[in-house]
Amino acid sequence: MRRAIELAYQGPAAGPNPRVGCVILAADDGGPRRILGEGYHRGAGTPHAEVDALRDARERASLSNGNPLRGATAIVTLEPCSHTGRTGPCTEALAAAGIREVIYAVDDPNPEAAGGATYLRDRDIRVESGVGREEAFEVVRVWATSLRLGRPFVTLKLATTLDGKIAAEDGTSQWITSSAAREHAHRTRSEVGAILVGTGTVLSDDPSLTARDPDGTAFPQQPLRVALGHRQVPMDARMRGNEDEFLHLATRDPAEALAALADREIRHVLVEGGASVAAAFLKVGLVDELHTYLAPMILGSGKSAVDPFGIETLTDAERWHTEEVRRLGQDTFIRAVKLPAQPSTTKHPGA
Amino acid sequence: MRRAIELAYQGPAAGPNPRVGCVILAADDGGPRRILGEGYHRGAGTPHAEVDALRDARERASLSNGNPLRGATAIVTLEPCSHTGRTGPCTEALAAAGIREVIYAVDDPNPEAAGGATYLRDRDIRVESGVGREEAFEVVRVWATSLRLGRPFVTLKLATTLDGKIAAEDGTSQWITSSAAREHAHRTRSEVGAILVGTGTVLSDDPSLTARDPDGTAFPQQPLRVALGHRQVPMDARMRGNEDEFLHLATRDPAEALAALADREIRHVLVEGGASVAAAFLKVGLVDELHTYLAPMILGSGKSAVDPFGIETLTDAERWHTEEVRRLGQDTFIRAVKLPAQPSTTKHPGA
Ligand SMILES: NC(=O)c1ccc[n+]([C@@H]2O[C@H](COP(=O)([O-])OP(=O)(O)OC[C@H]3O[C@@H](n4cnc5c(N)ncnc54)[C@H](OP(=O)(O)O)[C@@H]3O)[C@@H](O)[C@H]2O)c1
Ligand SMILES: NC(=O)c1ccc[n+]([C@@H]2O[C@H](COP(=O)([O-])OP(=O)(O)OC[C@H]3O[C@@H](n4cnc5c(N)ncnc54)[C@H](OP(=O)(O)O)[C@@H]3O)[C@@H](O)[C@H]2O)c1
Repeated sequence: MRRAIELAYQGPAAGPNPRVGCVILAADDGGPRRILGEGYHRGAGTPHAEVDALRDARERASLSNGNPLRGATAIVTLEPCSHTGRTGPCTEALAAAGIREVIYAVDDPNPEAAGGATYLRDRDIRVESGVGREEAFEVVRVWATSLRLGRPFVTLKLATTLDGKIAAEDGTSQWITSSAAREHAHRTRSEVGAILVGTGTVLSDDPSLTARDPDGTAFPQQPLRVALGHRQVPMDARMRGNEDEFLHLATRDPAEALAALADREIRHVLVEGGASVAAAFLKVGLVDELHTYLAPMILGSGKSAVDPFGIETLTDAERWHTEEVRRLGQDTFIRAVKLPAQPSTTKHPGA
Repeated sequence: MRRAIELAYQGPAAGPNPRVGCVILAADDGGPRRILGEGYHRGAGTPHAEVDALRDARERASLSNGNPLRGATAIVTLEPCSHTGRTGPCTEALAAAGIREVIYAVDDPNPEAAGGATYLRDRDIRVESGVGREEAFEVVRVWATSLRLGRPFVTLKLATTLDGKIAAEDGTSQWITSSAAREHAHRTRSEVGAILVGTGTVLSDDPSLTARDPDGTAFPQQPLRVALGHRQVPMDARMRGNEDEFLHLATRDPAEALAALADREIRHVLVEGGASVAAAFLKVGLVDELHTYLAPMILGSGKSAVDPFGIETLTDAERWHTEEVRRLGQDTFIRAVKLPAQPSTTKHPGA
């Protein structure tokens, strides 16, 4: 399962589908079990991890005789799907190949795709679930949460001084955080489906909002760049880029914005500011995760990271759960979530 | 030297004197060297570490004959002093005891006490300095910096939300940080000579400012409790306590306040707020270290940790050096200093 999880992480984080990895082991002949094939899901429209691993096993075995997959075991990070989407169901492919046992980590939270375990058991394939569940859940955490909530998972980014400022009195804000923090932030951009900013930030900062390497090279995977607000986005705004990955949502309603993004199969959106848009998402409870980058500076005056959003007394304020604390050069990165991440604990019938 | 450093840490951090540890090794007879005695400095008015270790060695040896200290080696974390303060000079005691070799880590930065190495060499005692200097400097960092600056070392404490607030709109501020962070803050109180707050905090919060255990028990060592500002401190203010460890400095000048504390042999003061006093110390560059406790909450509105103090553009702001990042329960602790801590690099003449 460890290897299957490694494989899963090779898939793209930003797409509409979950990242899944699969390892196929030769039938048990008493000795150590040989790996016949490995696979992972490379994104929407490409084969699922199981099918990819079956293909790999067939390729590796092409010179030998017979069906090496007969009696083999498939180890998968997520319950194999049993529905026909852009590709056929994996359960069918596994059964057809002669797999005798399937071990998977996380139950499929997608109601459309679930039922895979039942399908397999009905075909006399041994099924074991929950192996390595916690680690494997981490791979699909954002995707599974988005599915559960029926909207994109929302990460709010704040890059501030130790006293919570995002710009000095005169508006200067470049650079508060260090290159190490910016590198982390750019990597995060490459792992989300969309980045969203308010028209205020567009008009005052004209950010390009691309995901770039420290040396300025764009990552192959670029998120959709979204501007939120009634005002027009200038025709020469940098974030328009080649317009392919640009979207202006002429609304001030975060829920409406998220619905529009869900329609485009966006599972993860990074809200990068400014202070009014951050406040708007927090006010309606539409932030799932905070990414805070803190630079060791104190400004005293200047612009606060988040505008007032209706909290009057301390007990009104939500307490987030700190999931990760990390130094990034001179800066500190804190990742906090609404609820501690936890894998679904629903037991499979009969599991 | 490792053992000597351990011993040094057993001394009180809060006093006017440096913490020092000393180990005495038997004269080299070819075999592994036996520890004859160990000592550390227990605070002003008590024997210095070297004298304490000599006493320990004499006690342990009381049943044997002759002078076990003849030809022995003293390992000390700080250069032995050669001046007569509340106690006699250690160099004299070491020489008189028959010590033949002294190995120490950090040169004494105190101009009054320095010259110990020269004194010893003049008496044909072998002297080696700089062994384990970095680790040993950490023990006396605050004390040495205070000595160098001619004023108490100033630590500014900020306990805020992730967006830099210390209180909500309606003034509520209990509790922003978790019990783990408060425990850390109380331990810090027990390690400083004084805690200072503005009259604003006294009048609005009436804090007791004692250093307490998680279960409420006061630590044996209590810092001086200092109120800063022109207004009177009410006769029934909690911070008055039994008046023994209370001081009202009726000034608004941080430098004047520090001078008054230096006169009382305070080497380390913890500035605990509020926002105007924090700003006042930052404005005149009289903060040496920041202790930031960040709770995973966002308030949007409310009181900022630090009032404006004249920074208009980003390049005006000082960049601190992050020395320590740590999780404390759900909170994050960041310790940042003006300059990276470094041991004195002055070489001893002839060393
Ligand atoms: N350091 C950092 O990490 C960072 C990141 C981003 C921004 N910033 C700074 O933040 C500043 C911009 O902050 P900002 O608050 O003015 O900009 P903003 O939040 O980006 O944009 C505010 C605008 O967004 C629109 N909007 C959309 N939904 C809204 C809602 N629910 N409530 C209110 N407004 C909504 C409104 O414009 P319409 O009239 O068009 O609807 C509003 O004027 C800039 O100075 C920038 O440098 C810093
Ligand atoms: N969460 C936390 O960690 C924390 C910690 C402490 C305080 N707080 C909060 O902070 C608030 C109090 O903040 P604050 O800013 O009003 O109080 P403050 O900084 O404690 O006190 C301000 C007062 O200090 C005096 N002062 C002395 N030197 C000064 C100088 N150089 N410049 C300006 N004033 C000077 C002035 O009073 P005179 O007229 O008497 O000279 C001034 O009004 C309270 O709400 C408290 O809850 C929170």
